[in-house]
Amino acid sequence: MSHAKPEVSSSLNRFRELTARIKQYEEILGLVYWDMRTGAPRKGIELRSEAVGALSSETFKLSTSAEMGELLAELTKPEQLAQLGEIDRRLVEETAKEYERNRKIPPEMHREYVVLTSQAESAWEEAKEKNDFPGFVPYLEKIIAFNRRFIELWGAKETSYDTLLDMYEPGLTTKELDRLFGELRARLVPLAERIANSPNKPDVSFLEGTFDKEAQKKFSRHILNEMGYDFEAGRLDESVHPFATGLSSGDVRITTRYLPDDLTSALFGTIHEGGHALYEQNIMPELAGTLLCTGTSMGIHESQSRLWENMIGRSLGFWERYLPDLQANFPGQLDGVTAERFYRGINVVEPSLIRIEADELTYNLHIMIRYEIEKMLFNENLDPRDLPEVWNRKYKEALGIEPSTDAEGVLQDVHWSGGAFGYFPSYSLGNMYAAQIMDVARRDITDLDRQVAEGQLHPLKEWLTKQVYQYGKLQQPGEIIERISGKPLESSYLCDYLENKYRDIYQLD
Amino acid sequence: MSHAKPEVSSSLNRFRELTARIKQYEEILGLVYWDMRTGAPRKGIELRSEAVGALSSETFKLSTSAEMGELLAELTKPEQLAQLGEIDRRLVEETAKEYERNRKIPPEMHREYVVLTSQAESAWEEAKEKNDFPGFVPYLEKIIAFNRRFIELWGAKETSYDTLLDMYEPGLTTKELDRLFGELRARLVPLAERIANSPNKPDVSFLEGTFDKEAQKKFSRHILNEMGYDFEAGRLDESVHPFATGLSSGDVRITTRYLPDDLTSALFGTIHEGGHALYEQNIMPELAGTLLCTGTSMGIHESQSRLWENMIGRSLGFWERYLPDLQANFPGQLDGVTAERFYRGINVVEPSLIRIEADELTYNLHIMIRYEIEKMLFNENLDPRDLPEVWNRKYKEALGIEPSTDAEGVLQDVHWSGGAFGYFPSYSLGNMYAAQIMDVARRDITDLDRQVAEGQLHPLKEWLTKQVYQYGKLQQPGEIIERISGKPLESSYLCDYLENKYRDIYQLD
Repeated sequence: MSHAKPEVSSSLNRFRELTARIKQYEEILGLVYWDMRTGAPRKGIELRSEAVGALSSETFKLSTSAEMGELLAELTKPEQLAQLGEIDRRLVEETAKEYERNRKIPPEMHREYVVLTSQAESAWEEAKEKNDFPGFVPYLEKIIAFNRRFIELWGAKETSYDTLLDMYEPGLTTKELDRLFGELRARLVPLAERIANSPNKPDVSFLEGTFDKEAQKKFSRHILNEMGYDFEAGRLDESVHPFATGLSSGDVRITTRYLPDDLTSALFGTIHEGGHALYEQNIMPELAGTLLCTGTSMGIHESQSRLWENMIGRSLGFWERYLPDLQANFPGQLDGVTAERFYRGINVVEPSLIRIEADELTYNLHIMIRYEIEKMLFNENLDPRDLPEVWNRKYKEALGIEPSTDAEGVLQDVHWSGGAFGYFPSYSLGNMYAAQIMDVARRDITDLDRQVAEGQLHPLKEWLTKQVYQYGKLQQPGEIIERISGKPLESSYLCDYLENKYRDIYQLD
Repeated sequence: MSHAKPEVSSSLNRFRELTARIKQYEEILGLVYWDMRTGAPRKGIELRSEAVGALSSETFKLSTSAEMGELLAELTKPEQLAQLGEIDRRLVEETAKEYERNRKIPPEMHREYVVLTSQAESAWEEAKEKNDFPGFVPYLEKIIAFNRRFIELWGAKETSYDTLLDMYEPGLTTKELDRLFGELRARLVPLAERIANSPNKPDVSFLEGTFDKEAQKKFSRHILNEMGYDFEAGRLDESVHPFATGLSSGDVRITTRYLPDDLTSALFGTIHEGGHALYEQNIMPELAGTLLCTGTSMGIHESQSRLWENMIGRSLGFWERYLPDLQANFPGQLDGVTAERFYRGINVVEPSLIRIEADELTYNLHIMIRYEIEKMLFNENLDPRDLPEVWNRKYKEALGIEPSTDAEGVLQDVHWSGGAFGYFPSYSLGNMYAAQIMDVARRDITDLDRQVAEGQLHPLKEWLTKQVYQYGKLQQPGEIIERISGKPLESSYLCDYLENKYRDIYQLD
């Protein structure tokens, strides 16, 4: 920056300080949310939510302050931008985008929304536990009303829902998503039918039984270590809904949940969140403490969790290496199961009710249901009270099964309680990104499958660090996928991958 | 407040909002500190400390802002104060006192100090683990230098150290403390000698052995439940140095540490922190969210922890009721031990090196050593590098034993790493307050000893709530002890109590 004019230097320094402070407050807020989800006492939630509202509000005010406006006006001048280094330039661009969005929201409205969503998450937990959807409706109605108001203030894009999508995947539209999901549906639904008609069903009997929680925990930690997750820069806890949160690259926390009668839930949940965590732990140090020190979009983030969970964690090679370790953790329970049999068993395709426990194929159908419902909520004014009925009908249509309770239906996901409408598509985008990225990784890394089968997971982690992780928000999702694969996101890689995988497992012709 | 003049109402509302926000930020900062001490990953500490510095700094700025100055100038006018209700009046008085103190510290100096002490705590943990006092010295030197500067800015009272004392026990002076500690020494040192010369030593052999950690944890939780600690308004975790932290009355957290070869460490540590927690959980709801919603002084706070730990937890009646429960948790390990034998064993008086594991009597000698050293640091400019030598010599003089490592000597306590010079006397003040308060409780509560022996701990908890807990900071320490006992703090109650207790245990004549 030594060639920057003095006035630019001064603005730049003030801008760096101001955005660093916003990042610091976000880090602290992230910790408070982590705590709320991992064991904060019930009776403290109400006041805590108010405190979160106050600090979020202060953060929001900083990001929309007159000072921020002046600094951005100065720094976004073309001649000034041209003088900035890459990191500062991207920081200015990203911050300017957020500023434009945030300054349209009255601070008091923002504060109310934060308190509401903070309380709503506890209300959702309770509603899910008690299977009480009506008890959750008042929160949902308010959250949706807030989001409708935000869309008005921001200005609706082609549709209202487009405005929400853009928050999680910059530039993504319903039109584009309709096309991608249409392509997926056209190839995956017939694939699911061929699988359903195959006489070669995997044996899953060995997955039944009761699996000691402490042993599950131990194995989860083992696999995270193998993936290269750094426990000195993170920790593993339990929560109702598993999540990963990157407070800084030096503190990226994961949660999972252990089900005594389902070994795979915690196992793949942990690998999934571990994938998110590898991303956040390996962002280049130059971005530490800046607003660019996080994943570039939810779609790219989910690509990393889904890549590790499915393309590695549910691969044959992985279990050739790790099945013996798993068996050692559950003596007598998995004896005699071969890697091949285990691999087929954990990849059984079966319509199911719970998204996070779905197989790789039907998972995308779970996402499309949520996508359609969210479009109905925002583009067709669907009444939230009708959600259980719509939810159950769509499950019946798409998967042929219906939840018997709202707890295993419309109440299963945490997202809406936090106002995260528009997030769900990220999971299927992630699957598509992951398949397209893995296609290149297989060409770049010699003998990747053999390495995985030998427990050499580091070369893949290093490749992903080089290609994806290190950049944080320094590159946009589109730039990343084009740089890696030479083309924009396509649905065909995921379809090819799934067709190949299940052709083997179900011996399809 | 309906009779307040409009301009008062408006100032009062703004004042309430501003102080509520300070309290909210303090709650969040409390949570971050709790997290740092209970398992925050090492690699995130540096950036976290910066974030804590930023938020503390903002909090500090609010408390010293021009707005605060104007509001206080208005509200402290006698005619305005007279119109305020009790809570608002005390809030104004307390805030004004803090304001006067804080506004003398430049905000940047405050921020640096917060970052320093936040990093110093991690450095202390590491130094203690590695027995590396020299590694901790640079932190200690800086912290002491900051405190010397603060004293200059605040203006030294009769001595520099008096200025520090006043922060933890308003109005307390070295002169008064010299007197109180002199009286204690005059009666407790001879008592300790008579005990040392008594041929009737308690049997402690049954306390030796290895005690399962999970069983220790279970019993700790059991006793907290019995004391009336509300687990829906708190949680129990582990940390290197046990502590309690009241984030709000609905979230009062305790930590303890489990030593496999020492049953009593976690046990009495938990009861001690549980006593602190009962105080914070039972402050009247009217004070929730205000700066008055916390203990009134460290001395009164320690009186509640020490009362539960020693006067209840180390009483014969308590173990008549709870020894069978303890025995059930450690089958085969405490068989045949009678309540009487157990009671005598846990009350053995023996010079020891570690304060938090000391018996009730010599505990006060540990405190006096720290008090004398702190006076030397601030009134006589003792060089921190000489601390181990001074520490070891004083232990030799007062207790006849010397630490063989700094980890069990000068590095044993967390306090100095957080800059809490002047805090230690609170523990012995707490012992004195507790004895004076219990003297009244025994007269007010019919058959208190029998109730404890039957596991009826609620009447005592309710009495303490009524007399102490509910008030939070609404009354000053002096007001509280005078209201309860009709006189100021005296050393004689503690001396009488200890003499009586040990006369029985050691069969002194």
